[in-house]
Amino acid sequence: MTKSEFRSFIKEHPIYLDGATGSNLLKRGMPVGVCPEKWILENKNTLIALQKEFIEAGSNIVYAPTFSANSVKLTEYGLEREIEAMNMELVAISREAAGGRCLVAADLTMTGEQLSPMGTMDFEDLINIYKEQIGYLVRGGVDLLVVETMMSLQESRAALIAAKESCDLPVMVTMTFESDGRTLYGTDAKTAAIVLQSLGADAVGANCSTGPDKMVDIIRTMAEVTSIPIIAKPNAGLPYLDREGNTVYDMNSEDFAEGMAKLVEAGASILGGCCGTTPEYIDKLRERTSHMNLVKRQRPVKRYLTSERQTVEFGLDDNFIVVGERINPTGKKKLQEQLRAGNMDMVAEFAQEQEACGAGILDVNMGMSGVDEKELMLKAMEEVAGVTSIPLSIDSSHIDVLEAALRRYPGRALINSVSYEKIKFDHLLPIVRKYGAMFILLPLSDAGLPKSLEEKKDIIEKIALRARELGMDKEDIVVDGLVATVGADKRAALETLETIRYCKENGYATICGLSNISFGLPQRGYVNTAFLTMAIKDGLTMAIANPSQELLVCSAFASDLLLNKEEADIRYIELIGGIEAKKKAL
Amino acid sequence: MTKSEFRSFIKEHPIYLDGATGSNLLKRGMPVGVCPEKWILENKNTLIALQKEFIEAGSNIVYAPTFSANSVKLTEYGLEREIEAMNMELVAISREAAGGRCLVAADLTMTGEQLSPMGTMDFEDLINIYKEQIGYLVRGGVDLLVVETMMSLQESRAALIAAKESCDLPVMVTMTFESDGRTLYGTDAKTAAIVLQSLGADAVGANCSTGPDKMVDIIRTMAEVTSIPIIAKPNAGLPYLDREGNTVYDMNSEDFAEGMAKLVEAGASILGGCCGTTPEYIDKLRERTSHMNLVKRQRPVKRYLTSERQTVEFGLDDNFIVVGERINPTGKKKLQEQLRAGNMDMVAEFAQEQEACGAGILDVNMGMSGVDEKELMLKAMEEVAGVTSIPLSIDSSHIDVLEAALRRYPGRALINSVSYEKIKFDHLLPIVRKYGAMFILLPLSDAGLPKSLEEKKDIIEKIALRARELGMDKEDIVVDGLVATVGADKRAALETLETIRYCKENGYATICGLSNISFGLPQRGYVNTAFLTMAIKDGLTMAIANPSQELLVCSAFASDLLLNKEEADIRYIELIGGIEAKKKAL
Ligand SMILES: [Zn+2]
Ligand SMILES: [Zn+2]
Ligand SMILES: [Zn+2]
Repeated sequence: MTKSEFRSFIKEHPIYLDGATGSNLLKRGMPVGVCPEKWILENKNTLIALQKEFIEAGSNIVYAPTFSANSVKLTEYGLEREIEAMNMELVAISREAAGGRCLVAADLTMTGEQLSPMGTMDFEDLINIYKEQIGYLVRGGVDLLVVETMMSLQESRAALIAAKESCDLPVMVTMTFESDGRTLYGTDAKTAAIVLQSLGADAVGANCSTGPDKMVDIIRTMAEVTSIPIIAKPNAGLPYLDREGNTVYDMNSEDFAEGMAKLVEAGASILGGCCGTTPEYIDKLRERTSHMNLVKRQRPVKRYLTSERQTVEFGLDDNFIVVGERINPTGKKKLQEQLRAGNMDMVAEFAQEQEACGAGILDVNMGMSGVDEKELMLKAMEEVAGVTSIPLSIDSSHIDVLEAALRRYPGRALINSVSYEKIKFDHLLPIVRKYGAMFILLPLSDAGLPKSLEEKKDIIEKIALRARELGMDKEDIVVDGLVATVGADKRAALETLETIRYCKENGYATICGLSNISFGLPQRGYVNTAFLTMAIKDGLTMAIANPSQELLVCSAFASDLLLNKEEADIRYIELIGGIEAKKKAL
Repeated sequence: MTKSEFRSFIKEHPIYLDGATGSNLLKRGMPVGVCPEKWILENKNTLIALQKEFIEAGSNIVYAPTFSANSVKLTEYGLEREIEAMNMELVAISREAAGGRCLVAADLTMTGEQLSPMGTMDFEDLINIYKEQIGYLVRGGVDLLVVETMMSLQESRAALIAAKESCDLPVMVTMTFESDGRTLYGTDAKTAAIVLQSLGADAVGANCSTGPDKMVDIIRTMAEVTSIPIIAKPNAGLPYLDREGNTVYDMNSEDFAEGMAKLVEAGASILGGCCGTTPEYIDKLRERTSHMNLVKRQRPVKRYLTSERQTVEFGLDDNFIVVGERINPTGKKKLQEQLRAGNMDMVAEFAQEQEACGAGILDVNMGMSGVDEKELMLKAMEEVAGVTSIPLSIDSSHIDVLEAALRRYPGRALINSVSYEKIKFDHLLPIVRKYGAMFILLPLSDAGLPKSLEEKKDIIEKIALRARELGMDKEDIVVDGLVATVGADKRAALETLETIRYCKENGYATICGLSNISFGLPQRGYVNTAFLTMAIKDGLTMAIANPSQELLVCSAFASDLLLNKEEADIRYIELIGGIEAKKKAL
């Protein structure tokens, strides 16, 4: 099945997945504690019977029982040598059950080994583990892939990257959320959906977790922030132990189906059941929802950047965002020394300070001579993620550094930057697209700075056009207003302001550096701040600046307040309160 | 002659005054040291002969020989009792000379007694002295009045007020300038022309002073800042003593006429000669210039406010102006105590400090309980004029205080303010018109603050219409943007900004108070400054503020710089330099 076939597979009404595999097999004789994949291979008719019942009940897609058939899990059972045969045979069993009447999805999940730095698993190693399993599954003849019951967004990314680099099959990804709406690793549904969609998932959703009744907010949030199909595959309510000590679920098939109808209203279009759901549940689910019309999805109006655990969202009329510029060794001797010694203390300190001062995004630049910039960048990203959940702007003049960072970054980053310089334009833009990042469009070319506003607009539109050809949207672009020095060109500020207005009118977010404008003038803070205030009034989305500059940041927050932006009054009062508390503490 | 007849008297070509009276009479037998008016009465044929020669040469207007026939001067000769008869007879002599072939202008000049506080003459007494003389002159049958050889702008104002309050005849005013382009009392030609035109002079210009060659800048400046006819009546060059010890002038009639042609090109339309010019000069003058076309006068694009010695000019795209708000006892206990004690030290101090901090206009408000506000206002104005030449905004809620201040103020003031409250609207607006002031239009009515932007615009246009009916222009109006509190109304800033844009588009200058906007918020300076920056970007002309607020003023100057206003970079650098020098000195 191709990705585009998958898209047209979901039309006006829901489509159906299967119900539980594990809990049904346990009821049908599989002992607790065995390797399920091994048991299935030895009892294939039990699985075939179960899956046929699901298909009978209405499933359009069944999951091949390859859930834990990755090299890490199989090694636990001493089955590592059987991995190829097992995956291919397990797919064959489901294909036999399907008999051409429904699709078969290869099923993947977490390995159980934590990624470093929390665990010892290397990110690239994990990608390779998934690639290996996916290779066998594809050869086994699956129609699509599903990565499910994921609790780690970064491991989901590893599986998704592995899938994209192994085949062109559609990939669905579902994560499992705790009752607080976050995964065990701390990711919320919004962040998960944004990151997975931008990395190329063909459908995203939630499985296991809870009963459908407790999944409404998760599904609605995911539907609001994405445009791909949303999957809901919850449990049959909450588990409890019956008199015989068996785990049973507290929701009957009719209540389940009723709950699922609410999830359709919340935006789900691919429906199934997880633990505790039997073919009867799928039957009732289909009966209850198959004539429901799917929610008309609105294209998200906001832009999203995320870390692994938090999303910053913004529209063209929203509160202004400060991009903290301090994690950058240029001109900082002490930071340079620390970085050369592999010491990340100042990086962590700058991250925390900038967040405390109101930064909404942190720029990370490790450009300096005599170091392995790529290694330093990955290390800095990891360090920052340890102290703050603010999304990052990954800043380098080297494409290889940006590529390595994008691959590793566990959220949705901003890339700083893509220009119309041939090498960047040709090579970097596809990389940005592959990893689903947002990028700063720097309107300069190999000929240098644009000579006129017309040339600037022309470069903007050329890069935007190429991005569109690669499948990106205007919402993936943040145009750098290119601030010149007012001392050298008296119209510098006016021209940047015009660029900002042009971009806003044409649907592009904007960013500016601030210090250029005042070069050579005394008391530059006044000039920078006045410029920022005017730029915010004209629609500037974000600026890269040092958020410890109290005047600058307070003025920006005051500007939002004056422009009647959402909750800007509260934000201003809190910012001032924070600054005053900090001063009192000194 | 009516004012409108006078206006239509000057069409495409110049009209001609006479030449010198005094220097010609001395040559024709008048002894040095006598009372000229007395001598003329006793030798009327000498004058008649002279004036007939002028008329023959081309004069359209001759000056009746009433130059010093005011009660002060006549008293010096013991002739105070003869004043009525003398003025009427002197007019009769010129009327006889004119014989209906040309107009006769009553001639008035300075009394020789200085006004207080420099001298002992009271301003109202001086007005009455002029009124007395004018009364006789009008009864004598003059066609128009000329106030000439004036070295004091304030004494010129006294004469002009006297004329306006005595008759409806046209009034021409010419001042005498030193080689530095200022009168002996320090007024420049631009300021003189602006103040006299706005107070109702029908023509304004320069007489005596120098030869025509040195008068070009004065005439051009006067023509640029006014729309009434410009008078040039210079001397026949520079004086020197000949071998017999007589004062003679160094320019012959041809050179004089050639120089006068340059003055026509510079904008003069009423031409004549002063000391040293004989009928021959007028003849040559007429020959040389009578076919010249008058300069097409452009309506001035700038607005002007002045003190007695200095003009602040501004257009809708010009540098922002800070109106210093500190000379106001509201909430200032120490200032209140001083004012009650008649002590003006703090007023003087505030004036100087605010000028040093960048104020371009000073607001003066003496409103407090238990004082004679009118008397205090006049005293404060005098005090401020003693320490700075910045123009004033006269601020009171009492019409009588405003009227007294306007009558006395020796420049062109800004009046704070005229609202659509019936009493102010009906009574204050004609007073503002009479004294030629600019006024702040406060868009509120007896019903209070406007409920909507539409109502605000409606009030603006109603007041503006009435001002137009009274003969004022859009350039005489500065609309108060009426800043509400953003804490109470989240759209407060946006609505004031919209008002500012509306006013700019419709040709009105604007002013704002700043402190209301941030009421109730912490660190209000940030909010006020961000608002001011946005307002300047949207075209705010001036704001009433405390210029000691470094953040506010530096940001305003930085805003002008960013908006590429004229010389705003130099202004910003000088402001910062001044602030830093002051800090170093502390
Ligand atoms: Zn489950
Ligand atoms: Zn490189
Ligand atoms: Zn003279």
